[in-house]
Parts: sequence; structure tokens; C-alpha cells
Amino acid sequence: MIGNSAIRKEGRAKVLGRSRYTDDKTFRCVLHGATVRSDVPHGILKAIRFGEGIPWKEFTIVTAQDIPGENIVAAIVPDQPFLVPVGGEIHHAEEPVLLLAHPDKYLLEKARRAISLDVEELPATLDVASSDRVFKEINILHGDVDSIWAQAAHVVEADYRTEAQEHLYIEPNGMLAIVAHGDHQDQVTVCGSLQCPYYVHKALVHLFNLPGDKVRIIQMDTGGAFGGKEDYPSLIAGHAALLAWKAGKPVKLIYDREEDMAATTKRHPSRTHVKAAFDANGLLLGLDVDFTLDAGAYATLSSVVLSRGAIHAGGVYRCPNTRIHARAMATNTPPSGAFRGFGAPQSLFALERHMDVCAAKLGLDPAELRRRNFLKLGDTTATGQLLKEDVDLAGLMDRTLADIGYTEKRKLFAAANETDTPIKRGVGFSVFMHGCGFTGSGESYLASVAGVEGLADGRVAVLAASTEIGQGKDTVFSQIAAQALKIPMDMVEVAQPDTKVVPDSGPTVASRSTMVVGHLVEDAAYAFKQALIQQGFLTEPYAPEVFREAVKRSHARLGSMKCYAQYHNPPHIVWDDKTYQGDAYPTFSWACYAAEVAVDTVTYEVKVEDFVANQEVGRVINPVLAAGQIEGGVAQGIGWALWENVEWKHGRMANNQMTNYIIPTSMDLPRIRVGFLENPHPAGPSGAKGLGELPMDGPAPATLNALQNALGPLRLDEVPMTPERLMDRMEVARG
Amino acid sequence: MIGNSAIRKEGRAKVLGRSRYTDDKTFRCVLHGATVRSDVPHGILKAIRFGEGIPWKEFTIVTAQDIPGENIVAAIVPDQPFLVPVGGEIHHAEEPVLLLAHPDKYLLEKARRAISLDVEELPATLDVASSDRVFKEINILHGDVDSIWAQAAHVVEADYRTEAQEHLYIEPNGMLAIVAHGDHQDQVTVCGSLQCPYYVHKALVHLFNLPGDKVRIIQMDTGGAFGGKEDYPSLIAGHAALLAWKAGKPVKLIYDREEDMAATTKRHPSRTHVKAAFDANGLLLGLDVDFTLDAGAYATLSSVVLSRGAIHAGGVYRCPNTRIHARAMATNTPPSGAFRGFGAPQSLFALERHMDVCAAKLGLDPAELRRRNFLKLGDTTATGQLLKEDVDLAGLMDRTLADIGYTEKRKLFAAANETDTPIKRGVGFSVFMHGCGFTGSGESYLASVAGVEGLADGRVAVLAASTEIGQGKDTVFSQIAAQALKIPMDMVEVAQPDTKVVPDSGPTVASRSTMVVGHLVEDAAYAFKQALIQQGFLTEPYAPEVFREAVKRSHARLGSMKCYAQYHNPPHIVWDDKTYQGDAYPTFSWACYAAEVAVDTVTYEVKVEDFVANQEVGRVINPVLAAGQIEGGVAQGIGWALWENVEWKHGRMANNQMTNYIIPTSMDLPRIRVGFLENPHPAGPSGAKGLGELPMDGPAPATLNALQNALGPLRLDEVPMTPERLMDRMEVARG
Repeated sequence: MIGNSAIRKEGRAKVLGRSRYTDDKTFRCVLHGATVRSDVPHGILKAIRFGEGIPWKEFTIVTAQDIPGENIVAAIVPDQPFLVPVGGEIHHAEEPVLLLAHPDKYLLEKARRAISLDVEELPATLDVASSDRVFKEINILHGDVDSIWAQAAHVVEADYRTEAQEHLYIEPNGMLAIVAHGDHQDQVTVCGSLQCPYYVHKALVHLFNLPGDKVRIIQMDTGGAFGGKEDYPSLIAGHAALLAWKAGKPVKLIYDREEDMAATTKRHPSRTHVKAAFDANGLLLGLDVDFTLDAGAYATLSSVVLSRGAIHAGGVYRCPNTRIHARAMATNTPPSGAFRGFGAPQSLFALERHMDVCAAKLGLDPAELRRRNFLKLGDTTATGQLLKEDVDLAGLMDRTLADIGYTEKRKLFAAANETDTPIKRGVGFSVFMHGCGFTGSGESYLASVAGVEGLADGRVAVLAASTEIGQGKDTVFSQIAAQALKIPMDMVEVAQPDTKVVPDSGPTVASRSTMVVGHLVEDAAYAFKQALIQQGFLTEPYAPEVFREAVKRSHARLGSMKCYAQYHNPPHIVWDDKTYQGDAYPTFSWACYAAEVAVDTVTYEVKVEDFVANQEVGRVINPVLAAGQIEGGVAQGIGWALWENVEWKHGRMANNQMTNYIIPTSMDLPRIRVGFLENPHPAGPSGAKGLGELPMDGPAPATLNALQNALGPLRLDEVPMTPERLMDRMEVARG
Repeated sequence: MIGNSAIRKEGRAKVLGRSRYTDDKTFRCVLHGATVRSDVPHGILKAIRFGEGIPWKEFTIVTAQDIPGENIVAAIVPDQPFLVPVGGEIHHAEEPVLLLAHPDKYLLEKARRAISLDVEELPATLDVASSDRVFKEINILHGDVDSIWAQAAHVVEADYRTEAQEHLYIEPNGMLAIVAHGDHQDQVTVCGSLQCPYYVHKALVHLFNLPGDKVRIIQMDTGGAFGGKEDYPSLIAGHAALLAWKAGKPVKLIYDREEDMAATTKRHPSRTHVKAAFDANGLLLGLDVDFTLDAGAYATLSSVVLSRGAIHAGGVYRCPNTRIHARAMATNTPPSGAFRGFGAPQSLFALERHMDVCAAKLGLDPAELRRRNFLKLGDTTATGQLLKEDVDLAGLMDRTLADIGYTEKRKLFAAANETDTPIKRGVGFSVFMHGCGFTGSGESYLASVAGVEGLADGRVAVLAASTEIGQGKDTVFSQIAAQALKIPMDMVEVAQPDTKVVPDSGPTVASRSTMVVGHLVEDAAYAFKQALIQQGFLTEPYAPEVFREAVKRSHARLGSMKCYAQYHNPPHIVWDDKTYQGDAYPTFSWACYAAEVAVDTVTYEVKVEDFVANQEVGRVINPVLAAGQIEGGVAQGIGWALWENVEWKHGRMANNQMTNYIIPTSMDLPRIRVGFLENPHPAGPSGAKGLGELPMDGPAPATLNALQNALGPLRLDEVPMTPERLMDRMEVARG
């Protein structure tokens, strides 16, 4: 079961068009909702004006003063309102101010445009460099950095930047809310496109000031997320529910593509200064990283994105003296949010680019410089985490370089690039890791739960709040449960996440579903089997049909039997949040990615012509799904590296259409050659570690390192390295 | 809860004399059983003769031909009969041939003596050196040993011996059997003094050829075991049950001290040849160990005792070239069996003595020689196990040497020993490890289960087959469950092991109860709490009284709710039984023990005057109980090292009385100073590892190393180093 590429469970429904997304669900009486936004990046809301020619009485209108509970989206810091009240401060240009609902979508849009806001504008901070408001600051210090520079044979420093990236999930955000008014308390139900049902649940409990059992959140089939449906859905769900509550009718609030791209979160732009010291043998002596994220207008998840970025800033290298100073800064742009990689792609881009810059300065091949400095079992990371896994980074790198033909191609391309061909070719790579699960004590605080339930027909259901967002979670959980119960996969159903039905397994983020929740599913399955055995329904060994009959009999006799497992922190994982020292993650996944690029020096177009992605992610549960995750992540990473460019105008995204925000299609990408080195790890079920975010970290530095190889020394310090930027860098280099 | 010295749960009953041991249980109609044994060590049983003057018709008499199922004690190799049949081969002098039962104990004894056996004697192998029959052979090879000797700066080799040791648990073995004759099938129930209810269960299922649910085994309060109630109780239980089955009445078969000492198992005697090669810097280059165990007449558990002995033979040292050749040999003595340490004390005695012998040859302090060779994180053991735990053996040694005042005392004693005082003093130590849990794939095959059950009064019961044999298992399991459920310990009951009630948690052996079963108890407790929460009986956080009410309500509504957890092998633990390479244990406990001795060179009496026992056993759950385990093990180890000597006569133990088999009393021992270095490990609950066997491994080499320090170079190659043997060695040394 484990290690087989079982067919994706939800695949058939998707291919046949039978999946039910939020907007597919309709009622005759449903109202459509719309959001009126601030339009200016910073100011004081003075008044809301309703224009003429609109039958306003037909509309449900919600403002901040209608809110029954707290006007705060419950995130880490209570700073973001569901709706800015009149008299309140507007912090960014997409800030929701007023909600409208009406049965007629077209009239609704007309009405939205007829509303104008009186805003007293204030000076806006639109560039992180000019911001002086810090949401979160992290200092990691290991050894003595300041005294190292004088002793070093080489000191190399440089600046790197990464820009915003839009998730561009295939289905935009949307929610459907139904509120039943009770005698004493209301009952709020929201179905929607989301990653984390219990995050939304918590937000609505506060918004309506209701007990937990009066709020029910159900995930509908969800067309992608990538982190973009981690925090923002709480806001949309709240808006839909406020409208439904006031209207007394179901309300559907579905963003169109333009609204979704403009208003919802994006990847945090970053600025990184890296200073590295090496001894005469190319051994890393010191590393000083200054890492800044543009958090946008509210704190949201920025503190934890910053945390992951800071922890990954030291990369896969042993360094006795490391300082990482990281800050998440406030600006008056829409809040940045979770996005696959969660800060790590930004800091790893800087470091892995810098390693190639340093290699050139030291006169070493980038592979040789890295080889001398790789972390191994028994080394400690920048946070003082003692590595207790047998990681073979040199082996991973060597295999990747062999797969892409690094040595031969570097020679071949160097010779060809000498000629006057306008097409220059290069090959480059990156080596990196990604922490699995929540950072530090995070999993311990979550204390996630998963369960297994016996069904009347003899099958079992996996009960977990983890959401299927395209990654194949239902398939992987079925494989894990089937393996533990020794039954075929079609005897396992995975319950739709619904807070009335499933326990809180934590959010579907942080490369944690397979490793952390999957492990709980495995434990719950073993517990379920034992309960059957101990209650006399089953004896081992058994055939699947015998198991089915046992479940049926137990159901007939005792009703639905449910067994649960809860995460409890392994006591050897120790983390100090004050000093940022300790075991940042239970384990890491490790990878080496290599890219071959061709650059047209006339048009400045870059094409990635070959790509090898090798990783060690523990045990691979479903090779096809795992490879799919890697391929998708690499595509997203190459897009971020070369093309995906958010154009800002007065603090708003100006190119919020798929025609002018360019993501790569399959035609723009090479075949992505994915390989796995298996090294089972105790933290996960059957030894599986996390892999969802990992593939986002490596492609950008690998691609730009390949560009460096093609073009020679050049300030390749920013992603996306669009043709315009590349032209600029090449013209500067030409002088 | 964890880390607190909760009072031993069964302590009060024991102190007040309220514990119910097997012999305390009586029925009016109970018969007493007795065993007739072979008396010669090897032969063919020709006939059984019943003497005159005994009312034989009053007796229940069972011979091999009465056995309804298989006449084989189900162990690893099916070679041992419950009773030798007429015409069959007798393999040792204590072999059971016939069983008797009668209401009158005194008449019974008279009858036993009136039975004589016609045996055609065969030549007996009573010395392992002359045996050519191999029960089990193990070869461990790591690197290239043969070519290393020529390159080495120093090659040191020597022979070591250890002799048999009697467990001398306070309560002798005994069983009470009741057989109900059914219409179709009999129902066999046995209560007794035992370690492993499911081992006995398996043996009786085969003996009576009954389905598992027709055999019930219940552990009575048990007065110690130390491995001596691991396999032999299956034989006694079978005998008692055969008598009860034939008599149609309950039968009690209780060994007296003499029968218990003579007939039941003892620690395997061993012979070890160690050859070690060092380079000029004292680094271990090669190690060649030839290890032989005297298994006695039947295979019993010898193959696994040999396995643990072989795996531990390389000790705590990094050695690139290691060969370990190990054999368990058949002799015509009563079978050797499990005894705390399970082979490791024997091979570690040889190695840790040898390290001191080598240090003297190399002109290094024993601490310095060891320090240069200690295993650390990232090294591999002789079985190729990559160490993934952060073991600080040098730190453990330094602390121990500081605690005992090693450096100062070595100086002081050297000076004093130079004078003509007849009392010579020395200080010595040993460094060693003990694997936790079953070897290799053992835990995976066991797939143990533990459970937690809600009781009608709102308390919970821990369901596990692990037995309380003096170690405090009930207390530790209560602490683990109470901690997981956030309730006080008195709300946790631990169910008496009864195969009708508790699941198979595996045997209570191999330092596995706390680490392996305790972990399952913890998981089951979390599952139980979650079941309460998910079924709406409980919400977190809660006070203990709220929990109690929730359990009561759930019991009233749903009846007894039980949740289970089952062990499943961590996939990163890989073991190849063919090559004996891989992860021999999930983890090891580590220790350094130091002894100070005074030797009277006139009487050859040795007194241990100080003893320090420091260990790293992960997290300590109950410091007082843990220290108790260490103190007991050290006492047993010092007894083995100096006094406990089995005298053999014609293949029988001749000194099978407590008057002539000498174990140390508290008056013979120093204060044992116990210390723990905490280093939580993920394999156990709250990070706890196993510690039951560890303290048996270190005292003998530490004591004899101290003797070497007191007396100078001397062939201190054997335990027990009785005054007689010491006199012999000293006279040889004097020439």
C-alpha cells in the first residue's frame, strides 16, 4: 500500500466535472454578496455615501457597527478588522469597509460602484525600505560573528530581493453562509473554499461571540490554495456570515479573479543582505544575514512567515558563527500572507545565490564550495539544533549533477558561449532544506487529533480536519489507514472536513499533513483495529472481508465506533522561543535542484531547458502524487524566478488579470525530472516526511545560478528576473 | 507527574502483608502437586517404578502419555518436553518425568521419593568446552579484522569467564491450576507467579490443543523474577494444569527453595576470548571476540540471550574492524535462561575488564584509553547501527570519576598499598550500554498492544499484560496515564494481568515495559481522552473532577469504553537477521559505574567500600523507583562479581540453599550512589528509555577493575572472583 501510486481519490470526480465547488452550491433564495473596499492606501474613513439610482432598500447592507461580536479577525495579533468603521483608520487600498447583498448579481455590482467613501488621506508607506514600523523582529545568534571578519581569508557580501507572488489557485476564494436565528443563540454555518476549517471556526466564534458548537465550518471541494486560503478565508467567511445573519437568507460571497488577485494575500516581498566569511580552505567561518519582509498593512501570519524565513536563512551549511537578524515591516499594501514555502524561498534564494557568488570569488566550483560546508549528522544548525538524521547532502548533490550532466554541460556551454551565438546556455543548481511541520513548539500547542470511524457498511472513515486542496491528501490518508488496517483502499473513506464531524487536526499548511496528521491517522487506525479485536469482533490474521464483517457487526451492536489519536510533543524536541535556539523542526526534508537555461541575449528571454529535482523526503507514500507536488512546486518556483511580477500602483496590484500577470504554462516549462532518495524518518507514518513546500525553495536560485553560468558575473540579485530586469543588469555590466 | 517520585502503588499492600501470592490462594479441595525428576544428566528413560507402602490409588499421576496436545514447551525451538516419556531421552538431571498430586503435602513428598526411574545412562557433557552441539551461532563482521593485526602498534588478547548465577527472587516459582471440563472443550485457568502471561498462554494452548479463549492466565502478586519467571513458568503452569485436568480438582504446584534453585534456569555461564588491536595513539583498530554460552540441555531462550550478548560485545567503542563470533552450546545441565542483562553482562564483563588490561599494556590510564575510543552521535556500532542519539560518554565518565574521587584515590591508594598493610585498596570503573526493548525486528513481530478503559466510578484502568515484579510498573504506568489525562494518579488503576482482560503487551523483559509499553499506555490515554471529547462528554481544558464526571457519564451512557494503541515498527529501524547488521535496538541506555574496593590479602576477602552508578536513561519518570532498580541491579552485579557461586555436582546444583549460595545482604554492600543524566529520547513516553537490565552490566567489571588497581597485574579473568579464586590468582602471580 505504502509506496504504491494509488490513483487520486478525487481525480475521477474532477475529471468528470462532478466535484462540487462553493459556487456550484445554490439555493433558490440565495443572495449574492459584494465587498466595498477603501480605494486609498492610508487614511481615516470619514463617511460612506450611497449614490443615487439604486434601490438601496432591496439591499442587505452591513457595516462595522452591525457586528455582534468582536470586529477583529482572530489571527496571531488582533489588529485587523473585519470591516473598517467610520472614524477608523484605513491601512491599505483593498480594505473592506462595507458589505452588500442582493439576489441580482448585476444590480449588486452597480450598487457597489455607487458607493463612495469620504477618506481623509494620510501619507502611505508603500515601500518596505521607508517603513519604520516593525511587526516582528527575530535575532538568531550562534557563535561570535563580529570578530570573524578580520580572521577570514574571504569575506563576500551582497544584497538580494524577491518580489510579491500571487497564488493563482484555479478557483478564486468564495464562501456560502447560512445563519439560523435561534431563540437564544444563532447557529452559523459556512461552506467554502478553504485550507483550515478550524481557523475559520475560531474567527467566526469571535465575530459572532458564539460558543464553538454554534459555528460550523464545512470545506467544499477546493480548487487549489497554496497558502492563499489559509488566513484570508476567515475574513470572507465572516463577511458572508454577517450578510446572511443580517439578511436572514443564505449569502454567497464569491470573489472574481480580479478581486481575488488584488485583495487577497500574496507572497511577502523580501530584502536580504548576506555577508559570508570563509577561511583559506573555503570553509564557512561566519554568516551574517539581515532579512526583511514586507508584511503589508496587518500582522496576519507575518511573524511566523518571518520565523521560517529566518530559520532557513542559514541553509544547509555548517557555520560556527551565524547571526540572522530578521524583521517583518508594516507597509500600506494589502497584507502579505502564507504562500507555499512560507518565508523560506525568500531567504534560501538569497543564500543559494550567494553561495554561487562566493564560489566565483573563491575560484571554486559551486559544487566544491558547498561540498566542503554541508551539514551532516551530528552538526548543529544556526538555531543550535543538533542534527540527528543521517542526511547525505553530498550524495544528493552528486546524483543531481550527474542527472543533469553538470560537468560535461559546463564545459560544452562554456565553449559554445564563447562563439558569437546570441543564445547563451548555462547550468546551475541549489541545495536546500525545508522544515517539516510547525516551527518550534508549534505542534505541541496545536496538539492535533485525527480519528478512524467504523461505518455501517463495514468500511471505515478517516476523521481529520486536513483539507484536500489538490495535493492528494485523501489518497495518502487512505493509503496510510489501509496499510495499518490491512484492507484495500476502497474500504477507506476520508470524511469531508466539517467541524461538526472531524476533530481539529490543525491547519493544512507547513508540510505537516502527511507527516504529522498522517501519523495520527496511522495511530488511530491501529487503535481502531485493536478495539475490534479486544471487543471480540476480530482476530488476527484476517482477510479484508472478515474485517468488513467485523466492522459491520460492531456497528450493528455498538453503533458507530470511533478511535482517536492525539499529537503529543516528543520530549527530545526542545525549543526556546526567546533565544530562537533549539529544535526548530522535528525534521527537515532535503533537496538539490538543477536547472539548465538558455538566454536570448537579444530579447533577454530566458528558457529553462532541463530541470532535475532530487530530494530526500523520508519514505514516499505515493510516488506519483509526490512527484506531482514536486512538479507543481518547481513550476511555481520557475514562475517566481522569471515571470511572475506584481505591478504596484498606489499600493494596489495593477496587473490583477491572468492576461498580464504571467504564470508559466506547460509549454513554458521543461520536463521536470523528479527523483527521491528514500530515508525513512521516525516522525512520520511509515517514515514519510513533509514535501509540499520544499519544491518552492530551490528553483529560483537554481535558475539564476544557471543564468550566472550562462552569462558570467552579473548582478542576478532579484526575482522575478524578468527580461526587463535582465536587460538592465546586462547593460550595467556592459558599462 | 512525570519526574516525581510517586509512592509505589503496591507498596502499602506489601508492607501490610496484604499482597496475595500464589500460595496464599487456597480452596478446600485443592491438591498439592509434585514433580519427579530424572536424577541423571543424560540417558534413556526405560521405566518408572512405583515403590511400595504408598496408597497410589489416592494419587493423581500424570506422565507424558496423558498429555492431550503437544508435549513441547512452546519456546523458540520446539525441543523441550513437558515430561520425558518412557523410551525418551533425558537431557539433564532435573528433567521432569512424572507429576503427582495429592491433598496431603507430606504424603506427597513421601510418594515422590518412592518413585524410581530405570535409566540407561549415556555419556554426559557437563562442561561447555567439551560440547560440540551448537544451538545457535552468530557472526557479526564489520570491516576487515584479519589484516589489522599486522598494522597495529599493540595487540592484546585474553580469556574471560563468567559462571552461572541463580536469580534468587524472594518468592519461588509456583502455579495454581483449575480445569473445567466442558461438553466440547475444556477451559484451563492458571494463576501464578510469572513475568509473561501470554508466553504461558501460548504454551498451554499447545499443551492442551485448545483455542486461545479456552486458556486463561492470571498473574498473582509476584515476589520478584529477574528473568527467572520468563520461560520456566510455562513448564510449571503446564504441569499444574495437567494435574488439575486429570484430577478434576484445583492443583497447586509450588516449588520450595531447593527445588526452585536446582531445577529452574540460571544465568548462562560464558567463556570469552577478546583480542584487541590499537594504533600508536591508543585508537582501537580491531576487535575480535569469541563468545560462548553454556545453554544447558535445551535451546529455550538461549538464541536470543546469545544475540544480546553478541551485540553488546563491542561495548561503547568506535572500532572500524570488528568480528564477533558467538555460540550457544548444548550441555547436559538444566537449561540456562533469561536473567537480567540477558547475555550482555557476560560479554561486557569480558570487554570492560579487557579495556583495563589493555590500558595497562599501553601505559595509559583506563579513563584516557576509553576517552579516545568512545562512540558518539554519527558513529556506527559493530552491527553497523548509525548512532542517532547525542550520547556524551566522556561526560558520563568524567562525572562518575569525579563523584568517586578517582584521581585522588588512585594516588592515595597507590601510596598506601606500597606499605605493608594487608588491606589493599583500589578504584575502578566500567562504561557500558544496554539496548532498550527487543532486539532487531523483535518489537515489530510482537506488535504489542496496551489500552485504557473508563470505569463506572469515573476512574480509568490501564490495560496491559506487563507484570508488576517489584520494579514499580503499576506506579510508572499510572504516572504516564495520569500525565496524559491530566488527572491525579489515584484516578488511575492498573488492571491485574489476566489474559481474559488485558491485551498482549508482550513480555515483561528486555527493559521494554516503560519505554515500549509505557509509550502505548500514553498513546491509549490520549486516544481515550479524545474519545471523551469527540463524543461530547468532555471539553478541554478541564479539572480532574470534570474528567471523572465525564467518564462516569460515558460509562452510564455507552458502557465501558476502551481505547487501545498498538506498536508499529518505526520504519527507520532496519535490521537484517541474516547478516546481523542494522539497528539492533531503537536506542540504548548508557552508563558509567565506579567501585572502590578493599582486599584483605590474608583472607582474600573483598569488600566494595564505595559505589557510584551514573546513567543516561532518557527521562526518568519516577526517580525513587528508578534508583531502586539501579541499586538492586548493582547489588546483584556485585554478588555475581564476588560471591554468588553455583557448585555443580554431576550436572546438578549442589549448593541449592540460601545457606550456601551466598548473595549480598545490605550489610555486605556500600551505599550505592545513583545518578541520572537526563536526555529525553523519542522512543519512550516523555522521553524515558529502559533501565531494568542496565545496572547488571557494569558492577562486575568495575569491581574487578578496582581489584586490578588494588593488587596490580593479576589474572582477574573470572566472576565470581571468590576468595578461593582470588587466592589461586594471587598465588600464581607470586610464582
